[in-house]
Amino acid sequence: MYRCILNNSLPSDMYQINMAYAYWKSDVDYLKSTMAPSVEDDFFNFLKNLSADDVTLYAIDEGNVVFPRVPLIIVEGPLIVVQLLETTLLNLVNFSSLIATNAARYRMAAGSRIQLLEFGLRRAQGPDGGLSASRYAYIGGFDGTSNVLAGKLYGIPVKGTHAHAYVSSYSSLNDLAQESLAHKDGSGNENLKDLALKWRKSLSKSLNILEEEASNGELAAFISFAISFPFTFLALVDTYDVVKSGLLNFCAVALGLNELGYRSTWHQNRFRYKLDWFADVTIVASNDINEETIISLNEQGHKIDCFGIGTHLVTCQRQPALGCVYKLVEINNEPKIKLSQDVEKVTCPGKKVVYRLYGSDGHALIDLMQRPQETPPEINSKVLCRHPFQESKRAYVSPAKIENLHKIYWKDGKVQQKLPTLEEIKERVNKSLLTLRQDHKRTLNPTPFKVSVSDDLYNFLHDLWLQNAPIGELF
Amino acid sequence: MYRCILNNSLPSDMYQINMAYAYWKSDVDYLKSTMAPSVEDDFFNFLKNLSADDVTLYAIDEGNVVFPRVPLIIVEGPLIVVQLLETTLLNLVNFSSLIATNAARYRMAAGSRIQLLEFGLRRAQGPDGGLSASRYAYIGGFDGTSNVLAGKLYGIPVKGTHAHAYVSSYSSLNDLAQESLAHKDGSGNENLKDLALKWRKSLSKSLNILEEEASNGELAAFISFAISFPFTFLALVDTYDVVKSGLLNFCAVALGLNELGYRSTWHQNRFRYKLDWFADVTIVASNDINEETIISLNEQGHKIDCFGIGTHLVTCQRQPALGCVYKLVEINNEPKIKLSQDVEKVTCPGKKVVYRLYGSDGHALIDLMQRPQETPPEINSKVLCRHPFQESKRAYVSPAKIENLHKIYWKDGKVQQKLPTLEEIKERVNKSLLTLRQDHKRTLNPTPFKVSVSDDLYNFLHDLWLQNAPIGELF
Repeated sequence: MYRCILNNSLPSDMYQINMAYAYWKSDVDYLKSTMAPSVEDDFFNFLKNLSADDVTLYAIDEGNVVFPRVPLIIVEGPLIVVQLLETTLLNLVNFSSLIATNAARYRMAAGSRIQLLEFGLRRAQGPDGGLSASRYAYIGGFDGTSNVLAGKLYGIPVKGTHAHAYVSSYSSLNDLAQESLAHKDGSGNENLKDLALKWRKSLSKSLNILEEEASNGELAAFISFAISFPFTFLALVDTYDVVKSGLLNFCAVALGLNELGYRSTWHQNRFRYKLDWFADVTIVASNDINEETIISLNEQGHKIDCFGIGTHLVTCQRQPALGCVYKLVEINNEPKIKLSQDVEKVTCPGKKVVYRLYGSDGHALIDLMQRPQETPPEINSKVLCRHPFQESKRAYVSPAKIENLHKIYWKDGKVQQKLPTLEEIKERVNKSLLTLRQDHKRTLNPTPFKVSVSDDLYNFLHDLWLQNAPIGELF
Repeated sequence: MYRCILNNSLPSDMYQINMAYAYWKSDVDYLKSTMAPSVEDDFFNFLKNLSADDVTLYAIDEGNVVFPRVPLIIVEGPLIVVQLLETTLLNLVNFSSLIATNAARYRMAAGSRIQLLEFGLRRAQGPDGGLSASRYAYIGGFDGTSNVLAGKLYGIPVKGTHAHAYVSSYSSLNDLAQESLAHKDGSGNENLKDLALKWRKSLSKSLNILEEEASNGELAAFISFAISFPFTFLALVDTYDVVKSGLLNFCAVALGLNELGYRSTWHQNRFRYKLDWFADVTIVASNDINEETIISLNEQGHKIDCFGIGTHLVTCQRQPALGCVYKLVEINNEPKIKLSQDVEKVTCPGKKVVYRLYGSDGHALIDLMQRPQETPPEINSKVLCRHPFQESKRAYVSPAKIENLHKIYWKDGKVQQKLPTLEEIKERVNKSLLTLRQDHKRTLNPTPFKVSVSDDLYNFLHDLWLQNAPIGELF
């Protein structure tokens, strides 16, 4: 479980942080205050003139599905400058990719016809953590957010429910400031309270529920909401007892609204009222939903139209942090390798060019990393793809389509690509996931997507490994 | 495991978000664009003139230890205004309290003499999530952060190591731009490279390590660092093999520095060099440390002086989200109760005054919630403390000290208390934890701290419960 979708930096986040800088004269003054007095002024002057003009940044388009070992971002430039970028890049990539990936998994579990709403602001890491969560959940496949600021800043559709406190603020039907509502066709006003009470009496008999057990405060809250939003009536049914009060009151108001020409919001198979529109009522479920809940509900054949997901989306219960790293792979044309007893942590030395090879059915077959000086793979020509560490694992692949995954995003002090809109990135996530075979995406025992190296890169990697590995150890 | 330390809002976070508002003409314009056309202009005009002048906010001092059921913040004011504050308050309280609590748990596990550094920026929820994590980890008991911006903005001490990329950027001793260092006493320069090589040869013989297996690039990186920071030399020893390269090179440079009069950084019992200062060398451990690791290392009797903790601190593995809620308890002088089949979720109706009762040894005994009209408890007088839900659980307590937990923090459009500095809040966490008995704080099976209600509040709560509970259910 270590697959991630790449995301690049957020101009608006950076902007917010720059604002906060104001109250020290400069970053350099602050740094000076933290360092040993022996540090020369030349160093601080150097920092003052630091620029990223000599940095070139290659990245995979934001929203593409990516796999372990493939570099998400390649940074070239003066050593000190690119070292200073380490934490910034990791911070911006890790959480955003984690959330986008988590959101994409929810989308795959829920299927394409279910609405998914992000409800995570209360549990996110502060206001800005919440904004990032809204943004990347949307990119990953969610349809909207309850975070109104994210709606305003990023144009994400905002959706939500009313609060429990709204329902419980009504104590009785006497709290209704207004009871009448105009018929949709303009044919005059009717008393919605009377209609709702009539339907509640009738429903409670049919359903064998005691009308006295339903909360009148709740009914008043629903009526009041329906009068304000007759076209988008929605009710939170779990402030009191869901079946004996919430659903009964909801249906009573919904049927009243129906009499006045408005359609509204819930579905219960067992109700005997054969009104067609009841099948169109939207059911939103939102209590501590996670991926497993959705999969289990799918198996039971639920009638839910929309999931509101908060905590488990923004804190990513299954894997709360993505562990991207930033490693030196080449300096002064000399390749560098980071060795480790854990083979997963051995880095692939030198600059790489990465191709995604597709089959004739449009599915991605494999990622292939080459050295820059190699001849690129060609369409419909056999190319040898090797496992980076297991000598015997290799295969010939004849790609029907080839994609060079990296583009130059920053060079000569300028952004080099038209930056995509949120909608374009979201669409790329969707398209990119469609290129994966279903067995790579299934929840249980997914087939690992293979990331391979060319024969040349394989030999280069293993020669360098041998040169750097200590001799004389008993293995 | 649901104990939290209260924290209030962050002016600097709010400021950052306000900046971002700039590119819509106003929030109200944006809201209008999202709502049904039937919503009256009066509503938007009302929003434009919204103010918190009529809101009164009572809160427990930031940094106090608090327990489930005790309200952290009590908000009184016009219904619509206090409803609008719900998500903002939950967002600001939940994550900050979670991190402060998590940090306090690490501090308790590590003991007071170990340095704890927050290294979480790379895994936090974006730049601002990282800032919140740094801030609240510091409040909860950490000594510093690697997040330099948090240092600048909040005055938190910044500490860190150099990067692996710094070490691996050196390939050989030829990469050294400078080799000599002035003796601390000013008696002239010596060649630190030669000294380090001399010590490495001698050490490797004594320790039976092949000198050839140690990385010369790593040695060069350490020498270069030592020349720049002779007083604060520090080395990351796990870029290559820790024992055969990292420690050997570190000790060689440290002993060289020692010859030049500087003291430095590591401790290994088994070394035969009986230099006193080796015992003072600081060992920092920072690879995927969590609370259990620290407890286990404690049991083994470690020599580590400092833990750098990242992922598990900022994502709070054990419980990734704190579930504070915001509930209506009174409206127009009428108490409100939220019922639930889960007794833990039943709310305590009406406004409460909360006292913490202390014993004569200074330890907190119990929290007692009363109704506002009751006579407050008195020192050395018996007061009946009842379990809120179990009729038979009750006890008389004679407090030696009584603390009213809430203060008015906002009233009449103004902050009503001098807001504490970060250091003051940190100190309060420390003092507050000291008032808890050790058995409340132990990791395994902690004694739950009791939160009780007065007899009056008990009856009030249960009468209201009966009035609101449905009748006729078979139980």
